[in-house]
Amino acid sequence: MSLQSTAGNLLQRAVELDGKKRYTEALICYQEGLQVLVDVLKEQDGEKRVYLRAKVEEYMKRAEQIKELIEKLKREGNFHEQIHVENDSIGHSYNSIFSRFLDQDVDNIRIEDPYIRTHHQCQNLVRFSELVVKKCTQVRFIELITVNSGAEQAKWLNEVQNSLLQRKVNLKITYSDTLHDRQITLSTGWIIKIGRGLDYFKAPQTKFSLGTFDLDLRPCHETTVDIFHSNTVRNK
Amino acid sequence: MSLQSTAGNLLQRAVELDGKKRYTEALICYQEGLQVLVDVLKEQDGEKRVYLRAKVEEYMKRAEQIKELIEKLKREGNFHEQIHVENDSIGHSYNSIFSRFLDQDVDNIRIEDPYIRTHHQCQNLVRFSELVVKKCTQVRFIELITVNSGAEQAKWLNEVQNSLLQRKVNLKITYSDTLHDRQITLSTGWIIKIGRGLDYFKAPQTKFSLGTFDLDLRPCHETTVDIFHSNTVRNK
Repeated sequence: MSLQSTAGNLLQRAVELDGKKRYTEALICYQEGLQVLVDVLKEQDGEKRVYLRAKVEEYMKRAEQIKELIEKLKREGNFHEQIHVENDSIGHSYNSIFSRFLDQDVDNIRIEDPYIRTHHQCQNLVRFSELVVKKCTQVRFIELITVNSGAEQAKWLNEVQNSLLQRKVNLKITYSDTLHDRQITLSTGWIIKIGRGLDYFKAPQTKFSLGTFDLDLRPCHETTVDIFHSNTVRNK
Repeated sequence: MSLQSTAGNLLQRAVELDGKKRYTEALICYQEGLQVLVDVLKEQDGEKRVYLRAKVEEYMKRAEQIKELIEKLKREGNFHEQIHVENDSIGHSYNSIFSRFLDQDVDNIRIEDPYIRTHHQCQNLVRFSELVVKKCTQVRFIELITVNSGAEQAKWLNEVQNSLLQRKVNLKITYSDTLHDRQITLSTGWIIKIGRGLDYFKAPQTKFSLGTFDLDLRPCHETTVDIFHSNTVRNK
């Protein structure tokens, strides 16, 4: 595949996501596509160059507009993006869903999820925590609210706690017997609700199947991801 | 941390790597740093803008020079980059070491590694394969040359094989009793030799420690990575 078709694919995906009002994802695709397209441009001349330069300007303008649109929707508290994860689809790792919201401005995170109980569910928390410590360099506090399910869960969560503490992140665990909803709230005001919480991946076929480690390759259960932003949510 | 200091950190790292002749890594850091710096530039005016613009031009020029230098060294068959992985250091996942060489031009890969035998070593192969299928969209053939260590190993490797086949990648396994050296050869001519082969990570403290899944967070054993390029290696 040539660089130009790589750029084409990324930008096509950007336009699609843009059309579906999935703005934060569209923005990433526009930016990545433009980066490749600018590389292509360098090596062109004549009419082709004029054409590509016009394309670059067009997409840059749209990317700028989307950036402003996201800011505007955030300010108004009207931001709402929805991703439908199809049954058996892949490409929906925590990295793919969360990483565009995880940055150095996030200093604390609240995870409400009743299903951080079994062995693999507690490992989901490890995976999510790995992503957080890599992306949110300033994070110092994570609160987990989940349902108490006994000694083994407590032991596992304690191990996650100790490991996070080695990176100066405090994990506070609060048990609730009435918790049903699942949502992850970032101190920057982003709220990400996944219908199934963190537990939306199917088990790998074997321990030696692709997708055992990289969740982007793991087929998913059907679920919906809703993303909101509210600057006022912390004061309510 | 401000965007400007993010750019500063990336570019500082680029200059350091450049000084150590670790050109392919330096290039990535220059490119990423420049991308952030250009974003910073947009929001500046006056003297600051003039200063930053000069910086952007300076680093862009160096990035271009390095790109040409890598091409020249490749053509001459003189490319040699060395990375020393310190004992207990982190940030050396397969992604960090290999991903800048894994692209759509790679159509086959040869892995020579005597230590793809135990459970966790066969899982290392899964992790490496996950990276390959994500990055090398055109890859259709992987050859693994390793030492035979019995029925369990054969069963695990067979599971990796089946899983790769679902993605149209053929894994051919060749056993050798005399194999000692470890190296990974890409069809694009890149050769990556890790002193310890794929098995250079320390075990995680517990199954709920950060680094259990993300190898960038896992402390390493001391080892050296040598990277060569030879356009002629396939014909020898």
